[in-house]
Amino acid sequence: MRCDVLAVGTELLLGQIVDTNSSWMGEQLAASGIDSLLQVKVGDNVGRIVAQLERLLVDADAVICCGGLGPTHDDLTRDAIAAVMGSELRLDDDLVEVIREMFASRGRRMPENNLRQAMVPDGAMIIPQTRGTAPGLICPVSVGGVEKVVFAVPGVPHELHDMFHRAVLPELLRRGGEPSSIVSRVLRTWGESESGLNERLHPIITELDHVGNPTLAFLASGWEGLKVRLTAKAATPSGAAGLLSAWESRVRAELDDIVFGVDGETMESVVLDLLRRRGLTLGLAESVTGGLVGGRLTAIPGASDVLRGGIVAYATEVKRSVLGVSDGPVVSEPAAIEMAEGTRRLLGADVGLALTGVAGPAEQDGMPVGTLCVGIATAEGAMARTVRLPGQRDPMRQLAVISALDLLRRLLLEQSAAH
Amino acid sequence: MRCDVLAVGTELLLGQIVDTNSSWMGEQLAASGIDSLLQVKVGDNVGRIVAQLERLLVDADAVICCGGLGPTHDDLTRDAIAAVMGSELRLDDDLVEVIREMFASRGRRMPENNLRQAMVPDGAMIIPQTRGTAPGLICPVSVGGVEKVVFAVPGVPHELHDMFHRAVLPELLRRGGEPSSIVSRVLRTWGESESGLNERLHPIITELDHVGNPTLAFLASGWEGLKVRLTAKAATPSGAAGLLSAWESRVRAELDDIVFGVDGETMESVVLDLLRRRGLTLGLAESVTGGLVGGRLTAIPGASDVLRGGIVAYATEVKRSVLGVSDGPVVSEPAAIEMAEGTRRLLGADVGLALTGVAGPAEQDGMPVGTLCVGIATAEGAMARTVRLPGQRDPMRQLAVISALDLLRRLLLEQSAAH
Repeated sequence: MRCDVLAVGTELLLGQIVDTNSSWMGEQLAASGIDSLLQVKVGDNVGRIVAQLERLLVDADAVICCGGLGPTHDDLTRDAIAAVMGSELRLDDDLVEVIREMFASRGRRMPENNLRQAMVPDGAMIIPQTRGTAPGLICPVSVGGVEKVVFAVPGVPHELHDMFHRAVLPELLRRGGEPSSIVSRVLRTWGESESGLNERLHPIITELDHVGNPTLAFLASGWEGLKVRLTAKAATPSGAAGLLSAWESRVRAELDDIVFGVDGETMESVVLDLLRRRGLTLGLAESVTGGLVGGRLTAIPGASDVLRGGIVAYATEVKRSVLGVSDGPVVSEPAAIEMAEGTRRLLGADVGLALTGVAGPAEQDGMPVGTLCVGIATAEGAMARTVRLPGQRDPMRQLAVISALDLLRRLLLEQSAAH
Repeated sequence: MRCDVLAVGTELLLGQIVDTNSSWMGEQLAASGIDSLLQVKVGDNVGRIVAQLERLLVDADAVICCGGLGPTHDDLTRDAIAAVMGSELRLDDDLVEVIREMFASRGRRMPENNLRQAMVPDGAMIIPQTRGTAPGLICPVSVGGVEKVVFAVPGVPHELHDMFHRAVLPELLRRGGEPSSIVSRVLRTWGESESGLNERLHPIITELDHVGNPTLAFLASGWEGLKVRLTAKAATPSGAAGLLSAWESRVRAELDDIVFGVDGETMESVVLDLLRRRGLTLGLAESVTGGLVGGRLTAIPGASDVLRGGIVAYATEVKRSVLGVSDGPVVSEPAAIEMAEGTRRLLGADVGLALTGVAGPAEQDGMPVGTLCVGIATAEGAMARTVRLPGQRDPMRQLAVISALDLLRRLLLEQSAAH
C-alpha cells in the first residue's frame, strides 16, 4: 500500500507556514506499514493541483490532499478533486444544515460563501467534521482501470489529526487488502538524550534490525518527552499485541528509570494522576515559565480536582510581596523553596511547585541562560534542584515545564514507596 | 524565472525531521522575485530522485536539490544528478585534498567513504564548502534543447543558507536576466471570520483576480489571528513596494476596525507595546486559561518591564480567598471584574486583566462550553465583556487568550484617543 501526500497552499511555498502536516502524516503512515514515497507542496492553483494529483496517482494507490478546504476563493481542493474524478460539484443539503447549525450554536450568522464547504464531488463520501466547519472527503478515482482513492482533509492540524485517525487511516487499511494488524506502543521517556537511548538499547536495536518486526523508532518531541515507539505487524490484532508486549517488556527493562508514560499519557496527566491517587492538591509558583506549567496542566479536563491554581511571580517585587521570597538572588534554590512554600501557603495546597530561572536573551544574577531552579514544598518538608537546559528562550521554557514536573513525579513516587 | 525544490531524505518522509529547508528557500526565492511552484520530498532512492528531477525540469527553469550529499551509501544525490545530466561521476583531486585537510585540521583521519563527497558529475561546477565537508554543485542540463540548471546543496541548514546566498541565488539571478522583485505584507486581524473577511473584501478580491498583481490570500492562524497577505511583484523593489502600499491602504480602509498588527507583530507584542508606551504595568487573573495568557506574554523578551505577574485562580476557593471574588457564579461578568480588581490590587499593577469561562467538556454554572467572560480593571474603573467561542477545549482556550488581549487592546486605544 502506497499513500503519497499533496499539501496545498501558496503560503507553504512562500515559507510563511512550514508544512508540518505532511511530516506528521508520513510518521503515522509509516507506523501503520503504509509507504509514503512522495510528498508534494503545491500552491492555490487548480491547474497545478489537478496536474500533481494525476501525477501522484500514477504510482500511488492513494493520495491525501491536505489543505485548501476553507470557504474562500483561494480554497480550490474540492474543485481540483472533482476535475480529477471527472465529476461535478453539487451542494450537499445535509452539510449545509450542519454548517448552519455550527454557526448558529456560536450565535453567529453563516456567511454565504461558507456554502462552498458544503460542495461535494459526485461519487465522493463525506468525512463529518467534528471540530471545524470543513468536512473531509473520500474520493474514489479510477486510474487506467485501477481503483484508487483521493482523501481531502483540512490543513488545520487538530482537525487533520482527528480526521486522519477517525476516517483516513481505517479506510487505507481496509483498502490495503490482507488484514495485517498494526499495533504501536509509545514509551515516553525523560532524562536521557537520544544518543544515550541509542546506546542503552543498542543490543535490542541490532536484534530488531535483523528480525524487522516490530520496528523501533525514536521521536524527540520537546516537552512531550523523548518517545520510543514500537510498531508490530501481524495477521491478527492479538498476534500483533503479543509480539509488541514481548518486546516492550525487554525495552522497559533497559529504560525502567526514565519511562514516565505510555502512548497518550503525558507528563502532565501522569503527575495529576499521582497527586489525585494520594488525594493531594497542587499550587504553582512560576517565574521563568510565566504560566506555561498551569497552561499545560489545565489543558487536561478534570485538572480542577487537583490543581488549585498558581502565582505567576514575574516581577521580583511580586516574588517578595506575594510569595514572601526574602532578599537575595531570585534565581536560586533558596528562592525556589520560598516560592514553593509561599504558593502552598497562599493557595492552601498540599504541594507547592515553583520554577525560577533564566530564559534569556541575557543572563540574570550572574546565572547563565538555561539555568532552572525547581522548588517543591510538601507537608513533609521542602527541596530544590538546579538543572541546566539548552539555551534558546522558547525551547528552554518548554523543557523547564517537563523538567519541573518530572522532578515532582519522582518525588511523589519516592514518597509513595517510602509509605 | 521558476526554481522548484527537491528535498532528498527518507527521514523527511518518515516525519523524523520536518523539512524546513524548502520553506526557507521558498521564502528567499519569493523575496528575490523567483517563483517556486512545486516543492517535493523524496526518499534516498536513485530511481525516484532521477524521476522527480526530470519531472520538475519539464516546467521549472531550475531545480534546487537539497540533501543527500553526505558520505554514506544512502547519499545518492550526486549519482542521480549525473544520471539526469547523462554524464559520469569522476573523483575531483582538488576536492579530495580539501576534504583531507578539513579532517586533518580537526586532528582526525578521513574515513575512506568521505571520498564519495569528492565525486563530481562531468560538466558540473563546484560550490566550495566553507562549513562542512560536502561541496555544493551547479549542474547545467539541456532539456529539449533548453538550457536549465540543477543545484545540489547540503541539507544541514547553516551549510545550506551559506551556499544559497553565496552561490545559488547569484547564479539564479544571473540566469534570470533582470530579476523582478516580490514584496509581501501581512495584515493581522481579529474579530471577523475568514468568510466574513472574504465578504468585506469581495470587491477588492474580484478586482485583484482581474489584475492578478498583487495577490491576496487569507491565513487562519488560531491565536495568531486571521492573516490577510498581499504579495506584489514588480521589476524593482520600489515598484513592488509602491504597488503593495497602494492596495494595502485600500484593504485597510475596509478592515480598519479589525487589523491589530502587521507582519511580525503579534497580539501579545502589540498589547505590551501599548502598555509600555503609556508606562502602565499589567497583572493577570486567569481561570479558564490556567496561565496561557501569562505564558504567551512572557514568550516575548522584555515583557518583564510591563507584566508584573498573574494569579491562576483555578479553584473557586482561590478566586474568593486570594482575589476576593464574592459569592455567586464564577463564570460571570461581576466575577471577572472582581478578579481583575483583585489581581490589580494584589500585584500592585496599573491594569488588571481577568479571564473566566467554560472550556468544557461540561458546562458550568449553567453557562455553555465556549463562554468567556473578560474583566479589565484600570485606575479609571472596570469593565467586562462576555464572548462565545468555538467549543473544543484547546482551541477555545487559545481563542480566549487572543480575544481577551484584543479587548484590552481596544480599551487602551479608546483611552488613548480620549486623552
